[in-house]
Amino acid sequence: MNGAESLLQTLVGCGVEVCFTNPGTSEMHFVAALDKQEGMRSVLGLFEGVVTGAADGYARMTGKPACTLLHLGPGMANGLANLHNARRARVPLVNVVGDHATYHRHLDAPLTSNIAGFAGPVSGWIKASESAKTVAADGAAAVAAAMTPPGQIATLILPADTAWGEAIEPAAPLPIPRWPAPSSTAIDAAAVALRSGEPCALLMNGAALGERGLTLAGRIAKHTAAQLFADTFVTRIARGAGRVDVQRVPYFGEQAAEVLAPFRHLILVATKAPVTFFAYPGKPSELTPAGCARHTLATPEQDALAALEALCDAVGARKVAPVVTAAQRPALPRGQLNPQSAAQTLGHLLPENAIIVNEAATSGFAIPASTAGAPQHDWLDLTGGAIGQGLPSAVGVAVACPGRRVLALEGDGSGMYTVQSLWTMAREKLDVTAVIFANRKYAILQVELMRVGAGNPGRKADEMLSLDRPDLDWVKLANGMGVPATRATTAEEFNTQLARSLAAPGPSLIEVAL
Amino acid sequence: MNGAESLLQTLVGCGVEVCFTNPGTSEMHFVAALDKQEGMRSVLGLFEGVVTGAADGYARMTGKPACTLLHLGPGMANGLANLHNARRARVPLVNVVGDHATYHRHLDAPLTSNIAGFAGPVSGWIKASESAKTVAADGAAAVAAAMTPPGQIATLILPADTAWGEAIEPAAPLPIPRWPAPSSTAIDAAAVALRSGEPCALLMNGAALGERGLTLAGRIAKHTAAQLFADTFVTRIARGAGRVDVQRVPYFGEQAAEVLAPFRHLILVATKAPVTFFAYPGKPSELTPAGCARHTLATPEQDALAALEALCDAVGARKVAPVVTAAQRPALPRGQLNPQSAAQTLGHLLPENAIIVNEAATSGFAIPASTAGAPQHDWLDLTGGAIGQGLPSAVGVAVACPGRRVLALEGDGSGMYTVQSLWTMAREKLDVTAVIFANRKYAILQVELMRVGAGNPGRKADEMLSLDRPDLDWVKLANGMGVPATRATTAEEFNTQLARSLAAPGPSLIEVAL
Repeated sequence: MNGAESLLQTLVGCGVEVCFTNPGTSEMHFVAALDKQEGMRSVLGLFEGVVTGAADGYARMTGKPACTLLHLGPGMANGLANLHNARRARVPLVNVVGDHATYHRHLDAPLTSNIAGFAGPVSGWIKASESAKTVAADGAAAVAAAMTPPGQIATLILPADTAWGEAIEPAAPLPIPRWPAPSSTAIDAAAVALRSGEPCALLMNGAALGERGLTLAGRIAKHTAAQLFADTFVTRIARGAGRVDVQRVPYFGEQAAEVLAPFRHLILVATKAPVTFFAYPGKPSELTPAGCARHTLATPEQDALAALEALCDAVGARKVAPVVTAAQRPALPRGQLNPQSAAQTLGHLLPENAIIVNEAATSGFAIPASTAGAPQHDWLDLTGGAIGQGLPSAVGVAVACPGRRVLALEGDGSGMYTVQSLWTMAREKLDVTAVIFANRKYAILQVELMRVGAGNPGRKADEMLSLDRPDLDWVKLANGMGVPATRATTAEEFNTQLARSLAAPGPSLIEVAL
Repeated sequence: MNGAESLLQTLVGCGVEVCFTNPGTSEMHFVAALDKQEGMRSVLGLFEGVVTGAADGYARMTGKPACTLLHLGPGMANGLANLHNARRARVPLVNVVGDHATYHRHLDAPLTSNIAGFAGPVSGWIKASESAKTVAADGAAAVAAAMTPPGQIATLILPADTAWGEAIEPAAPLPIPRWPAPSSTAIDAAAVALRSGEPCALLMNGAALGERGLTLAGRIAKHTAAQLFADTFVTRIARGAGRVDVQRVPYFGEQAAEVLAPFRHLILVATKAPVTFFAYPGKPSELTPAGCARHTLATPEQDALAALEALCDAVGARKVAPVVTAAQRPALPRGQLNPQSAAQTLGHLLPENAIIVNEAATSGFAIPASTAGAPQHDWLDLTGGAIGQGLPSAVGVAVACPGRRVLALEGDGSGMYTVQSLWTMAREKLDVTAVIFANRKYAILQVELMRVGAGNPGRKADEMLSLDRPDLDWVKLANGMGVPATRATTAEEFNTQLARSLAAPGPSLIEVAL
């Protein structure tokens, strides 16, 4: 048994079932070990941003890590942007990054680089294996580190000689640390606030936005008249008819401030104090209103469900029936195809138990409302602002959840970042409907240019914010990677094409021409 | 004048003429400043790997830096792989990386990350500007750092408030350090070796591979019977009829060792001691033969041309006429289209003064020989082994050298990494002929899997090394980004399509179906 085989057996023993990869020469023994190892599915991405984004989506749906297999420093580097998003999503993820053999590194061959340096800003745990005999134990430690609440990125650097050298045996799984319980002081303080008669809001993310968390929060809200909010961008939220609905904090600071202004108490559940996404000249960055007290019921690292249970009891809401969303779908639209009408179509057709991967940016503003009363579904956001996460995440989500329809709602600008994802969808025959909102611009930047006070764009600035000249043809791009595709130019066309895509097994893409 | 304007004026004053960019909200003041600034061309890439690879290609042809404009940590991260290649090419390059306003960073908003951490492994110089009043001076320092021989990557982090805050005035250019002269000891030692009567080889890279360097080396070779070698992968080399030809050190270690075995003296000119690209079990990593003395005539950081001049004089070769390559082109091939016949077509049709950007990997083995006697041209390689450099580099090369035909010779696997480059070629109407060698696999890895002793690939391993199921359709991919494209399946078709592409202004792509 060589080191790669001992590592792979260890990972499988620790519950890792999928390896998203783009390997190179230094990873060939790991690839060969994949051949022999039952229980580990390997999925190829044609660029590492696909690989790491897929591992993020997979972890959001399963709560456990996939492993990535990356080729030295540059392979790691190509995956960093989506690892940044995964870090912000607080998901478990194990990177295995091949490196030169330990005795080769000092020679500074062309692919030599500071892998740990690249990995540092995104990783909660990093280790470079030193010997084939310790690789297995390092792998078990990596999984335990990744699973440490709330979930983090563990990066294991695997020098080629530790992969091909003689190993001893696989390592046993390590115990996974439990979620720390919230403090009783925090629960008491939140309960006091809720009973104060002053306006209260709960701001939530993480486990609080799962079905159980929302039910508990809904009971508290019904009983105390508190309002429920979720962060602007969430790791995952359970939505749809029969579930407790929560309002999102708006993206733009002025709107967020307006929404939060009425409250004297802000109770944080698995999230941090709200801040604007960017700074704007002369405008506040912090969104907690003046005179509003903040109470951290549970930090993102603490057990939010236990905290909500305890708070529910503390305010006497245990048996309260929460307000849930009524089943309601918009009518199918006719005529012009625009973000509003496209949202109606999505709300009308969204299948039971679907998973929405949302990176639609400015084109997606109407979709939350239009899908609120649709059949129950999960919704995932871009958590770290590094665009190019949606299509890769959809790959991982679909691998994690066979039998469920995945809707990847993408902007054209963000979609181009990791467009190679479409090929993996085709190869793995994933049930993904990719909807590309093609407005042929970085529309958010045209807004932001003015919001930051940089003035109206002239010709050169406009060119840097536009995706036209030439226009992208998403039907050809998708077909070029083996994904069937159509273009919708009217609401009726989108109605027909979306219905057809949702019913067809495997991936397909619809370009929504805006 | 705000900070962004002062920085941009400073950069232009320092000779920076092109900004390759993908900006975001935190860079909007820089984008607005671009609008007002004469003398700075801005070129949009739809992914940052395009942006940094283009800056590398631009620097290789002009010897001076372009600037990139990147969006916070993830924008920097997406550009790192090609910055790794640029670092290995030892070219000057200035990154301007937007960041949150200084007072916003501690709030840990979603896009906050350790930008300097990401940038560290590739940057020779890093600074985060602290005030709008110092941004201009920081910009001048960044250019001087980038231009410090042999050329390096300078990364300037630009917090949004230093861009929008009130500045004083642009900063004047700083003096550029000269290339350090080689030591007379080194020249004497090399001369002694060359006069020893023992077999000598010169191994060269950097400036030694320009027209002047090759002529000097050719005089020495003719006079002393030394043999001339270039590194396996070079930053740039002048080639073609009437120029001094040099042999490349082969990629595979066994072949490299065989080629270098006869020599007792290895004289290094602007390069380091040769090593294998990867380590292989039980095989040596160092390629200097046993019993062969190494002499560093000039390090990569020293003035290689001065060193060659001095060595030429020291061995009395100043007036020697070097052996130059005779004008000779292969005949146009017929029948099967394969790497050999495609190389013949390229050799037959290569236009005068063309620039070859080579990332053809295993499909390109025959092209150096088939083009050796073609009209004079420049040839650029993938220097750092991080694939996905060829198409972006071709963008920058074409921006740098209007009027010259650029041939981007790409593998299909590497081409997919930064396929978004095609769109920039179309938007900027660049005279690029992209030739995609479509063998539908990572062919090098199929070789390497066996070379590292990992055995024959089984089904799962084979799937990780193959690009088929589904096949990529490069004609559709190119058309989807506005680039005209054709597919060649016979030698005759490639002959016709290449001739047509070379004659047509603007970009076009040919898929060579292997």
